[in-house]
Amino acid sequence: MALPKGTTMQFSSEQHLDDAVLEREFTLGEIPGILWTPASAPAPLILISPPPLGLRKMYPRLVARARQAAADGFATATIELPGSGDRPRLPDGEQALADMRRAMEAGEPVSDEIIDALILPLVDKAVPEWQAALDALLALPEIGGPVGYSGGVISLGTRLAVVEPRISAAVLFAGSFIPRAMFEEARQVSIPLHVLLQWDDEGNDRQAALDLFDAFGSKEKTLTANMGGHTGVPEHAGEAAAQFFVRHLK
Amino acid sequence: MALPKGTTMQFSSEQHLDDAVLEREFTLGEIPGILWTPASAPAPLILISPPPLGLRKMYPRLVARARQAAADGFATATIELPGSGDRPRLPDGEQALADMRRAMEAGEPVSDEIIDALILPLVDKAVPEWQAALDALLALPEIGGPVGYSGGVISLGTRLAVVEPRISAAVLFAGSFIPRAMFEEARQVSIPLHVLLQWDDEGNDRQAALDLFDAFGSKEKTLTANMGGHTGVPEHAGEAAAQFFVRHLK
Repeated sequence: MALPKGTTMQFSSEQHLDDAVLEREFTLGEIPGILWTPASAPAPLILISPPPLGLRKMYPRLVARARQAAADGFATATIELPGSGDRPRLPDGEQALADMRRAMEAGEPVSDEIIDALILPLVDKAVPEWQAALDALLALPEIGGPVGYSGGVISLGTRLAVVEPRISAAVLFAGSFIPRAMFEEARQVSIPLHVLLQWDDEGNDRQAALDLFDAFGSKEKTLTANMGGHTGVPEHAGEAAAQFFVRHLK
Repeated sequence: MALPKGTTMQFSSEQHLDDAVLEREFTLGEIPGILWTPASAPAPLILISPPPLGLRKMYPRLVARARQAAADGFATATIELPGSGDRPRLPDGEQALADMRRAMEAGEPVSDEIIDALILPLVDKAVPEWQAALDALLALPEIGGPVGYSGGVISLGTRLAVVEPRISAAVLFAGSFIPRAMFEEARQVSIPLHVLLQWDDEGNDRQAALDLFDAFGSKEKTLTANMGGHTGVPEHAGEAAAQFFVRHLK
């Protein structure tokens, strides 16, 4: 575990949203997070991993998904990724980002070395944090039942699906670079998966996303590809992902 | 048009299914067909093209889809494909089928020539028949509103989507051989599409299916890939296809 033993969850604020959802900000050691719970308790939990853009920036989209999940009877929680928001940058993260931008601006492919440097340290650091968050969340009386994961960094979701047996089903967004090592890890995934791909996402390696989907060992896996660019996931695709959780977490 | 001018639709039998769906068999010239209508009228219409295995053999699956569609307020209709069921075989169809089987048994790829011979004459003959069926169906007072197409021979659906402006949205099953010419036709398709692919369908050319999906000119298109083999489309995928029609035909 990357967190000091005994790290506890501290709630720092709470507010009732207009639709009977309780929103509470918390910290887990130095890591900020948000928990949304519906009126019905105990509720199954969906962990929502944001893209690495910071919780504050992603809040409008996160709260919209939390409200939809609450309407389906689910609690949701998220924590800030390592290196995002106000958290300290990862040691070599800025260099990897700069290398990536330089390659893309030069119209060159982003090399495997850059992808590894960009993604693997993030996944290595984030996984024990999400597991610690899960420890703390599952200890709350208002959380119970199976756990789902819904995430924007597909390598993080892949690793969590392999190492964290408490996660029963996952929605993965295939929109980020995929280190070579993840294709091997993907073969070890066995939980039901619902993978979202934006077909015309120009900055994304579509073939790598299709190869990763093919590699997942899960007997039950669905790929849903849509148009609309990286951020243009259509509403009906969000609804289908929500229905996936209703099928698997209820 | 392949049908003699003035060919009319003749109803030959009718029965009420237990759930308030009226099932009527009909003939359109020599072509047998079935029409299912819900209690609510006029209803939008979904044309369901069966796989080329004969209406009698496909009846259980067709009626299940017709009932689901009726519950959503849709009428559905199907006609026997050229060369299927009791209809006369296509002149070179048996030869093309035998060539295909020989190639597959020898573990060889099915050549473009065989695929063309197997699919193109079927599409050429079927398209005007489906258009004639549409003429007759839209003349019925209980049918009204937009028309959807849901079909098992993806080249037939592709051609119909290009040439038949009365079809507003289509669900296509990517599970059959695709002649080279269809990739060019696909670029001319502009209606919303919902494409179903069985990822582990061993007899299907998955790459060709992905290439065809990529080629479709529609701004709004969804690919949904699942596991379960050629005939194992999961129930949730059928429901998602039904929701696609609700979004586009209501």
